[in-house]
Amino acid sequence: MTTKEIKIYRDLMGANEVWAAKTRVLLAQKRVLMINLIGSPGAGKTSLLEGMGVQLDKKMKFAVLEGDVETTRDAERIREIGVPVSQLLSGGACHLEAKLVHYALQDLDLEHLDLVVVENVGNMVCPAEFDIGEHAKIAVLSVAEGDDKPLKYPLLFQQAKAAVLSKMDLLPYVPFDLPACRKYIQQVNAKLPVFEVSALQQEGLGGFMRWLCELKS
Amino acid sequence: MTTKEIKIYRDLMGANEVWAAKTRVLLAQKRVLMINLIGSPGAGKTSLLEGMGVQLDKKMKFAVLEGDVETTRDAERIREIGVPVSQLLSGGACHLEAKLVHYALQDLDLEHLDLVVVENVGNMVCPAEFDIGEHAKIAVLSVAEGDDKPLKYPLLFQQAKAAVLSKMDLLPYVPFDLPACRKYIQQVNAKLPVFEVSALQQEGLGGFMRWLCELKS
Repeated sequence: MTTKEIKIYRDLMGANEVWAAKTRVLLAQKRVLMINLIGSPGAGKTSLLEGMGVQLDKKMKFAVLEGDVETTRDAERIREIGVPVSQLLSGGACHLEAKLVHYALQDLDLEHLDLVVVENVGNMVCPAEFDIGEHAKIAVLSVAEGDDKPLKYPLLFQQAKAAVLSKMDLLPYVPFDLPACRKYIQQVNAKLPVFEVSALQQEGLGGFMRWLCELKS
Repeated sequence: MTTKEIKIYRDLMGANEVWAAKTRVLLAQKRVLMINLIGSPGAGKTSLLEGMGVQLDKKMKFAVLEGDVETTRDAERIREIGVPVSQLLSGGACHLEAKLVHYALQDLDLEHLDLVVVENVGNMVCPAEFDIGEHAKIAVLSVAEGDDKPLKYPLLFQQAKAAVLSKMDLLPYVPFDLPACRKYIQQVNAKLPVFEVSALQQEGLGGFMRWLCELKS
């Protein structure tokens, strides 16, 4: 090295991206699909998982990583339906980061799983910004939240590979314009598949399950 | 200064707290009350404001600062009901910070106002962590979101001076245990006043309005 040379070191990837990349390698090795459910508190993410537990039985073996700021309530709901589940507590943070997800993944029996579903912390903003090494982010929006949310929180719908419109059973009781919402989703992500689901009534889950099975194959 | 002395400089207040403190001085000078509505996307914050517009008319003169990640849709809804409103765009951030609020406040006609309502970005986590110089944070939780949210997102309910349970008209159609939710709220904040409201049906707003008037006096 001459005195004229200046060596430059740059942190090309932040710590989160490093852990996300490790997770991608791990998932590829084990041939496991991982999806990341993102939506507001009360958007119906855990109910969707409960519905998936019933529908996916025998088609795909899956486990759940439950992200929350506090409590193990959601993990307890998933355990009730006989699906392997771990609780990830964000410690006050409004999103999950890749390192925590990676450690939790390593403790799952990945050899015998087809799918890992991460339920992120209830929040439409920050989780959309964080790569956790997943194959697909899934936007979950309940019809009780209003049809304008894809325009107001566009990053989630831009980052997502599919959107689930949840709590469709509430449609008669809320001022939610379904064609308008579909149009707004198209405005931010023209080709995003949209699934209309009522997990409570066990309706509309089939299409989303088929899409998941195709993503896996 | 002797060689044995060690001078210590510490940043006693972060930039956000400095701006929040400036806002408190401004509000005290102008005798204006400022509240900060915090809740998930679609919790019913803007509908609550629309209801307040009808009920508060003549009792208190108020203006609104509308926080959003993107779009001016909410500000347009408030302008429709004849209430002065400014739009604060967070530029992707999941909460409002004190500096932006302070600048927007200075542009309002504070001499002729009793109340400023800030509608924060839709998010139950991060806005609860940021002091914007308000007199009271108000937690807004829709019954469509589920009764367990006070336990899952406790910081908001700890920081709040009142909670509004919104969209009460949906109660017959959702699995929401009202006594359980009130118990959970009490567990995280024993004395928090809770108001049950349906802004759509114009029901239950009176109690919240009276509480606001008392806070002002």
